[in-house]
Amino acid sequence: MSNPAIDDVQLDRLADVAVRVGLNLQEGQDLILTAPAEALPLVRRVTAAAYRAGAGLVTPLLSDPEVTLARYREAGDHSFDRAPDWLYGGMAEAFGNGAARMAIVGDDPMLTASEDPERVSRAGKANSIAYKPALSHISNFKINWSILAWPGRAWAMRMFPDLDPDAAQTKLAEAIFAASRVSDENAVANWQAHNARLAERTAWLNDHRFDALHYSGPGLDLTVGLADGHEWMGGASRAQNGVVCNPNIPTEEVFTTPHAARTEGRVRATKPLSHQGTLIDGIEATFREGRIVEVSATKGQAVLEKLLDTDEGARRLGEVALVPHGSPISQSGLLFYNTLFDENAACHIAQGQCYSKCFLDGDSMSEEDVAKAGGNSSMIHVDWMIGGPETDIDGVRADGSTVPVFRKGEWA
Amino acid sequence: MSNPAIDDVQLDRLADVAVRVGLNLQEGQDLILTAPAEALPLVRRVTAAAYRAGAGLVTPLLSDPEVTLARYREAGDHSFDRAPDWLYGGMAEAFGNGAARMAIVGDDPMLTASEDPERVSRAGKANSIAYKPALSHISNFKINWSILAWPGRAWAMRMFPDLDPDAAQTKLAEAIFAASRVSDENAVANWQAHNARLAERTAWLNDHRFDALHYSGPGLDLTVGLADGHEWMGGASRAQNGVVCNPNIPTEEVFTTPHAARTEGRVRATKPLSHQGTLIDGIEATFREGRIVEVSATKGQAVLEKLLDTDEGARRLGEVALVPHGSPISQSGLLFYNTLFDENAACHIAQGQCYSKCFLDGDSMSEEDVAKAGGNSSMIHVDWMIGGPETDIDGVRADGSTVPVFRKGEWA
Repeated sequence: MSNPAIDDVQLDRLADVAVRVGLNLQEGQDLILTAPAEALPLVRRVTAAAYRAGAGLVTPLLSDPEVTLARYREAGDHSFDRAPDWLYGGMAEAFGNGAARMAIVGDDPMLTASEDPERVSRAGKANSIAYKPALSHISNFKINWSILAWPGRAWAMRMFPDLDPDAAQTKLAEAIFAASRVSDENAVANWQAHNARLAERTAWLNDHRFDALHYSGPGLDLTVGLADGHEWMGGASRAQNGVVCNPNIPTEEVFTTPHAARTEGRVRATKPLSHQGTLIDGIEATFREGRIVEVSATKGQAVLEKLLDTDEGARRLGEVALVPHGSPISQSGLLFYNTLFDENAACHIAQGQCYSKCFLDGDSMSEEDVAKAGGNSSMIHVDWMIGGPETDIDGVRADGSTVPVFRKGEWA
Repeated sequence: MSNPAIDDVQLDRLADVAVRVGLNLQEGQDLILTAPAEALPLVRRVTAAAYRAGAGLVTPLLSDPEVTLARYREAGDHSFDRAPDWLYGGMAEAFGNGAARMAIVGDDPMLTASEDPERVSRAGKANSIAYKPALSHISNFKINWSILAWPGRAWAMRMFPDLDPDAAQTKLAEAIFAASRVSDENAVANWQAHNARLAERTAWLNDHRFDALHYSGPGLDLTVGLADGHEWMGGASRAQNGVVCNPNIPTEEVFTTPHAARTEGRVRATKPLSHQGTLIDGIEATFREGRIVEVSATKGQAVLEKLLDTDEGARRLGEVALVPHGSPISQSGLLFYNTLFDENAACHIAQGQCYSKCFLDGDSMSEEDVAKAGGNSSMIHVDWMIGGPETDIDGVRADGSTVPVFRKGEWA
């Protein structure tokens, strides 16, 4: 199956990078793969590449936007607190038995934007609760996993509304291929070099062992305390099963776990956030003792408030990430309405669940240990962008002295 | 999404019949739906119809032929004894919690015909073992379930190799719509009338309580003992969860459970059998004390022998079914290479697992009770056609006296 709007050679390379660099799939390892049905040309290539790499069994789970919408449009009210527990429980079991996880994203980011936000929120919450046991294998980095993107047609038309559908899809495909470093034939070598550069940054930050980061810029005066024993990570990382993988393709960020009780100040989002099909724009928030105590948005405020009410941890930070304003995705000037890309265009923070892997002893820490060190717990993990060309960041040492980390949006 | 080769109005009716007649989906009931990704136009309609009927949550699981083939072509040898246990275990759990099951078939019936039969057989066996807990909810008729068909393009081209792909798909679509009784606007009423006719036949057979059936015809001299306390069924039936559904769309047969140890004689298949992508033609078999002791086929003999070696029950009968030669599907003269259709063109028998529901006390019988009454147990259930225009069938009473059931392929 070939789609004239999408270059087959680069699609082959993306599948190869996804399996060899993204997952680093091991001989005999099973793979669970989620994707929109529209992404079948990439799913088929990933499946073939995975079997060539020695996969045990590849199981794709294909979704469809019209099936998703049929529920909002036709189902009775009782439907919206349900989730496929049996399916997610099965996935958790498979991950526990060593299966790797790949997610291909590519749906219209505004898919559910016109649906009842109350129902969207209830369905999302039911889904999060049911998915939590499976997600814990990802968020605790117990297995090798990776997310990458398919240039979905509705997504492309959302990004490039003035182009005809084929041209829009071609343009999104090229942007994905470039950001995923598969535009030339040295895709795997490109990733090795990129991973080495990110490793230098994390080594520098880990050497400094900052107590907190202080952000300043337009609408931004925020101190983010870092968790006790936090570790900076970025690019290729070793999962608890010993496999070194690249969980995000593309990725430009270095990131760690903040302290759930030690963020203070005010912050203004520099990009809109697309959450479960709703665009949330113009977010401003005030943190006190780690918790959002005031929040507003010029668009999507109802969805944002429901999101923050998911559970106690939803108002606290679970991730802090540094991305230079000069990153290729930032410089492309494109807004993807998709976190996988947009989080690589700016420094960001995330509400909700922390990555327990971002601790020096992450692999051996219990949930209680993580909580004691300041790691946040929640059913959600939602990134939002707070960095821009004016952002300054200082590393704050335990004694209060500071070291420049970012100046005017770039590494200092 | 519309496909110009397939009539949208009849597709809407098929989805409606599938949900209302096939499943008789209940308010609040969840639905697990398997289908080829190619069938999305029907999957979307079924999903919407299910939610309109009050479904809790509809979960489609979409497959893809290229993903299936990628395994045979790229995977290492270790892959072929694996199956997605976690997924099938989850399905069994969902059925146990009351979910209904729908299967939409439509793949190329010769999909794996060119692959290594040893690997096809190993993969099929691993799949059967893993699926058995889920299948038991179907074969014991614990839940309402239904199978129907999508006019898949490769399937259509297999049936009509001389037509161009669009014309072939249109012709298969029309054949499916006609056989599924949705060609006119009275689809649901058509099914009510059809179910009533089938109920008359089963009532007559159940009143006679035959001990055995004796078949005669070309290459056919076979006595099939019926299980103790067997019950004839056909058309709409009540599942153990109390829901009256039509498990097969289309259906023309009335059927019951034979005694696993009481089939004697010889039989010649009157149509080829398409099993997991391989065509098996020209089957001749000899039964002694219920067991196939000799078998041959002019085509696909290796696959047939592997199939019969699956387990002890694979050589014994699990179903006997009566279909008049004048049935609409028979009269269409089409060979569908798909049991859902071809079994409705001729009297047939099935190797393997019996339906425990086909007993007077089926709902309350344990697996041991079923076995004691003569019900067969196996991981497989494979139908094959033995009836034709020359077939005579007599009902044999316990005292040896006989009653004509079929003469020259029609009800006597």
